[in-house]
Amino acid sequence: MKRGKEMKKNVIVAQSGGPTAVINATLAGILNIARKSNKVDKVLGGEHGIEGILKENFFDLFAKFDTPEKINLLKHTPAAFLGSCRYKLPNDDEVFAKIFDIFKKNNVGYFIYIGGNDSMDTVDKLSKYAKKIKSDVCIIGCPKTIDNDLAITDHTPGFGSAAKYVATSMREIILDSCVYDKPTLTIVEVMGRNAGWLTAATALARWNKKDAPHLIYLPELPFDVDKFLVDVKNAIDKHRNAVVAISEGIKTADGKYLCEFEKEVKVDAFGHKQMSGAAASLADIVSQRMDVKIRTIEFSLLQRAAAHIASKTDVRESRELGEAGMKAGLDGQTGVMVYIKRVSNSPYEAKIEVTDVSKVANAEVKVPRDWINKEGNDVNKKMIEYLLPLIQGESVPVYENGLPVYQKRIGLIEK
Amino acid sequence: MKRGKEMKKNVIVAQSGGPTAVINATLAGILNIARKSNKVDKVLGGEHGIEGILKENFFDLFAKFDTPEKINLLKHTPAAFLGSCRYKLPNDDEVFAKIFDIFKKNNVGYFIYIGGNDSMDTVDKLSKYAKKIKSDVCIIGCPKTIDNDLAITDHTPGFGSAAKYVATSMREIILDSCVYDKPTLTIVEVMGRNAGWLTAATALARWNKKDAPHLIYLPELPFDVDKFLVDVKNAIDKHRNAVVAISEGIKTADGKYLCEFEKEVKVDAFGHKQMSGAAASLADIVSQRMDVKIRTIEFSLLQRAAAHIASKTDVRESRELGEAGMKAGLDGQTGVMVYIKRVSNSPYEAKIEVTDVSKVANAEVKVPRDWINKEGNDVNKKMIEYLLPLIQGESVPVYENGLPVYQKRIGLIEK
Repeated sequence: MKRGKEMKKNVIVAQSGGPTAVINATLAGILNIARKSNKVDKVLGGEHGIEGILKENFFDLFAKFDTPEKINLLKHTPAAFLGSCRYKLPNDDEVFAKIFDIFKKNNVGYFIYIGGNDSMDTVDKLSKYAKKIKSDVCIIGCPKTIDNDLAITDHTPGFGSAAKYVATSMREIILDSCVYDKPTLTIVEVMGRNAGWLTAATALARWNKKDAPHLIYLPELPFDVDKFLVDVKNAIDKHRNAVVAISEGIKTADGKYLCEFEKEVKVDAFGHKQMSGAAASLADIVSQRMDVKIRTIEFSLLQRAAAHIASKTDVRESRELGEAGMKAGLDGQTGVMVYIKRVSNSPYEAKIEVTDVSKVANAEVKVPRDWINKEGNDVNKKMIEYLLPLIQGESVPVYENGLPVYQKRIGLIEK
Repeated sequence: MKRGKEMKKNVIVAQSGGPTAVINATLAGILNIARKSNKVDKVLGGEHGIEGILKENFFDLFAKFDTPEKINLLKHTPAAFLGSCRYKLPNDDEVFAKIFDIFKKNNVGYFIYIGGNDSMDTVDKLSKYAKKIKSDVCIIGCPKTIDNDLAITDHTPGFGSAAKYVATSMREIILDSCVYDKPTLTIVEVMGRNAGWLTAATALARWNKKDAPHLIYLPELPFDVDKFLVDVKNAIDKHRNAVVAISEGIKTADGKYLCEFEKEVKVDAFGHKQMSGAAASLADIVSQRMDVKIRTIEFSLLQRAAAHIASKTDVRESRELGEAGMKAGLDGQTGVMVYIKRVSNSPYEAKIEVTDVSKVANAEVKVPRDWINKEGNDVNKKMIEYLLPLIQGESVPVYENGLPVYQKRIGLIEK
């Protein structure tokens, strides 16, 4: 028996936090399931996360993605198609009330938020408020972040593709950095303010153990500048062309970020702190003490946007998480996040489960000490075994005229 | 009739200057032809360009690349497999005499140098000296450089792949840079000290004319900081998230590089000038005048090493140039460089010809004024038509365990 239109509800979906190469694959997964469900009328995309929802900036996504080809294009498009925000919901019942009024007004039965720690906090708060006011809107979280620092889930969608980009680019950097017959130091800075997962992925670039990157420093351990200088000297003596990977967030034992080290942090006319990178700081320090050609490379936002070298495993899992999130909502679950549970490393096997989102909100998972070597300047076999399955397979976008075809962000599409 | 071993000659091949993603495809092309010739005994790879030849650091390349699979791996490996150098041959007959003694001692009949402007100067000098001493060693140049600034040739191998990387990454950056609902400025710095070809390739990232990158500045025109600030303000007013591409070599009308602008250039303990990038300088300038979030991205050496997104057209042409170079030598030509002559844009058609290397040595080809827009802040249709054929086709490397398989540099292979 088909449900009447009057019984159907709308889905609101939004994206939040830093974009990834596969965050839109999760959105595609949500659309896949919603399309097939007789409980769903429309899927409304909220622009710029919860901020756009408060402004009722909605787009009808069934209308926009009405063919499998269009959904496939979305799946391969990096960055947040719906736009994003960095907005932490205040503990203010007035704001919550406004959101649920908007839900009511728009006949919303399901709200799905794709994001990281802060976004899961939003999901947690909204679902608790829903319970309080006895709203039957199902509030669901789908994880994403290249930082891989979410609790409960084995890993986060977006991380595998970022890791594949970082490892591939590092391998290419290694080849380029050793062509000249003179001592060189190449310092590669990888995203990760508090967790070193992505920096650890540079280790995958090695042909074998002795190869570059010769040194890897994560933010989990205090960074010792003197020890670093000794490590670098040894690496150059041994390999001539030393390659080092560091997390952007490395800091000394007294909590000082390297990117603020040995220099005044400039403040612009509007009071914004201008931090140059940790790699640049280290280059300054080394250049005052060693006669060696130094190059610094920051992957910058390339590492979170490079859909052209996305991991097929990551794209698949991201889509599946979207599908599972939508299904959880349709099953009446609320206050939950879908996540990945690893069953085995080799062959890699994982399944998708559902957890209470309060267990995830605001937690931050760091690299375990025993996945880092004793000296604190490399990762070990445990890390490699964990990482390898996540970068498997090449997700090839459609190419047209020599370039990957991507979907423009919703706010920028000509209407 | 087979020639006896005593009649066969050896080939010496070496690589010089900055590496590219496809320089080894030229080496693969040389090996393809040399292998089939009954005039060639061995192909000796000289390590680190002419410097390695002077030290007689030779590797037997037929022994190393004895299967089509191994040659294919070489073809897809970025950076100089033989190592490189930045050595300009002095006008010193003693050095020339030493080189030709080494040629004689090693039964060399052909010397092929893969490189840019400076390398073609070396080819020119050596072939003139050969003529003077009546040596019958054939001296051949094969072009390469991501800068695309060589004379005579329509374009240089390595440029198309760098352009494809730059355009792909720019498209991904554009998507990432527009996700937040606040005014932003993203400044992307592209290689090119004196010629803006590669920076121009960022224009290919656009979906249509109005899209980012909104402003493109090449080093061919003097850079006007005040005009730039007006341009940026207009772009942010119009598009909210402005994206700008600049060449690393942009300089003001009085010849001052932007990377040296408005700040003291630091000198390290060993007297090396430390220049931070032009994008960082511009970010400093803008941040003092506008309240806008600014991000700078330097493609750094990623743009010349990214074989994972090499242009298939570029890889093919690079191989063909190696084959043509070897053939030219076997035909007894000397003092020449092989080059690409474009026949038509659409459909793209090009052929490989041979030119007197003295016409190429030390020349530098810049972007014509009439390929840049009137305002000097973008390129026009002529540039797009020129660029498009060069990025066509995807050259996919072999992937193993989630990463491209590349050949380690010869000096680093375990013996």
